[in-house]
Amino acid sequence: MTATRNLPNVTDVEAAELIALAHDLADAARKATLARFRQAGLSTENKANAGFDPVTEADRETEAAMRALIEARRPQDAILGEEFGAKSGQSGLTWVLDPIDGTRGFMTGTPSWGVLIALLNETGPIFGVIDQPYIGERFIGGLGQNYMTGPQGEMILRTSARKILAEARLFSTFPEIGAISERLAFEAVRDQVLLTRYGMDCYAYGLVALGQADLVIEAGLQSYDIAAPIAVIEAAGGIVTNWQGGPAHQGGQVLAAANRDLHQAALVLLSEQS
Amino acid sequence: MTATRNLPNVTDVEAAELIALAHDLADAARKATLARFRQAGLSTENKANAGFDPVTEADRETEAAMRALIEARRPQDAILGEEFGAKSGQSGLTWVLDPIDGTRGFMTGTPSWGVLIALLNETGPIFGVIDQPYIGERFIGGLGQNYMTGPQGEMILRTSARKILAEARLFSTFPEIGAISERLAFEAVRDQVLLTRYGMDCYAYGLVALGQADLVIEAGLQSYDIAAPIAVIEAAGGIVTNWQGGPAHQGGQVLAAANRDLHQAALVLLSEQS
Repeated sequence: MTATRNLPNVTDVEAAELIALAHDLADAARKATLARFRQAGLSTENKANAGFDPVTEADRETEAAMRALIEARRPQDAILGEEFGAKSGQSGLTWVLDPIDGTRGFMTGTPSWGVLIALLNETGPIFGVIDQPYIGERFIGGLGQNYMTGPQGEMILRTSARKILAEARLFSTFPEIGAISERLAFEAVRDQVLLTRYGMDCYAYGLVALGQADLVIEAGLQSYDIAAPIAVIEAAGGIVTNWQGGPAHQGGQVLAAANRDLHQAALVLLSEQS
Repeated sequence: MTATRNLPNVTDVEAAELIALAHDLADAARKATLARFRQAGLSTENKANAGFDPVTEADRETEAAMRALIEARRPQDAILGEEFGAKSGQSGLTWVLDPIDGTRGFMTGTPSWGVLIALLNETGPIFGVIDQPYIGERFIGGLGQNYMTGPQGEMILRTSARKILAEARLFSTFPEIGAISERLAFEAVRDQVLLTRYGMDCYAYGLVALGQADLVIEAGLQSYDIAAPIAVIEAAGGIVTNWQGGPAHQGGQVLAAANRDLHQAALVLLSEQS
């Protein structure tokens, strides 16, 4: 049988093992990130040639801690991480890790950054975790699960039923978003929605899964930025594609929507402009 | 003796009473806001004639709960609240209340909104509380206090020593910020700083007090939006003025800075443009 994202070749026993490992990864990442968050002397360096993309010690320590756990318990799985790149595997499953998504948020004390953990088969993300260590929130989706835990306990993740742009709450990390054509495309949607918010990093995807936000539009993403959000939002009933309606788990331009109607309405505007 | 903001006519016994009441107000506000935050059926209405300014039930219930406490325990004090306006007093002290600062953040599930509680004498804010109920964080400043409580325990509030714009981390709620001239003035500073973040509502002022951010620039504020942040940031060693360097506690255009050097550098750019 060929594996698909909805029907991955994973037994119930293996699914339980994978889910337990994902929680252990998130727990390890909480410990590693919180040891550095808001601490004095946070060291940063400029990773990108153009623009500002700080890397912290916390980023590296956190990914190293997660990779060590995967290599010990699932040596047959591949790994792709933001900091330490790719490791091949034999199981057909790949862990995609972003130890700190939203390093600018992290550097400014803003609890909008998160730890992203995704599990992919050859067709795309089948399970994902978005974890916000400081608040103590964890959004989980895939392999039959769709819930979050946080200060108010456990809640089911279910996307909103708001079906028209005029009612929609849109998030994006930066108003500049990307190239000029990308900004114009974003603004075509922004001009139609109820309200637009910035600065939430990966937390915005959790809010869509929770039904508190309706759209996220971003550009220039890497696969590790979006793989986990795809799994979480899809498990909650939402849709995530690129701006042409195709698969988004390789990164690039991303449109996350609470439901098919909103997705279609935003997609028309984005594809007209870009 | 004439009262000033640094030397208010308040005995130690009265100061302790006022501080205890402020905590009780914040506790009551936590309970009232969290009963509504992220709940289904959050009712909103359009309060402003132009633009989008939602008012929630939570806003009104929260302010009502705080006013009832003040009227019971300090009937001699004046009150100014966002929702229910002004009540006069005889003590020379005024409680200035914003039950939910950042209603758009509240409506979108974003823990960037806060409860703002300030105590003013005739010269301005002498004590303030910024409370974020969902995360469980409380920033406190004035009457000899400067600390926060939150998930990582208690921390001293002390603003950063970053003295040049090229190192500064700037926050503002919206990139549009206000009128065109205000946007241009904001952008003159934005173009000089290390990084700019949006969408944090009153939480940004807490981050400046904590030394995690260095500047906040906003326009079109009301007195209840800024009175508490002024007290908290000043107690932590920072400076808050309007864009002309004068008092900011009446609202309008606000510049909050971690220290005098940064304040001066930003003020020059803002006042040139506006």
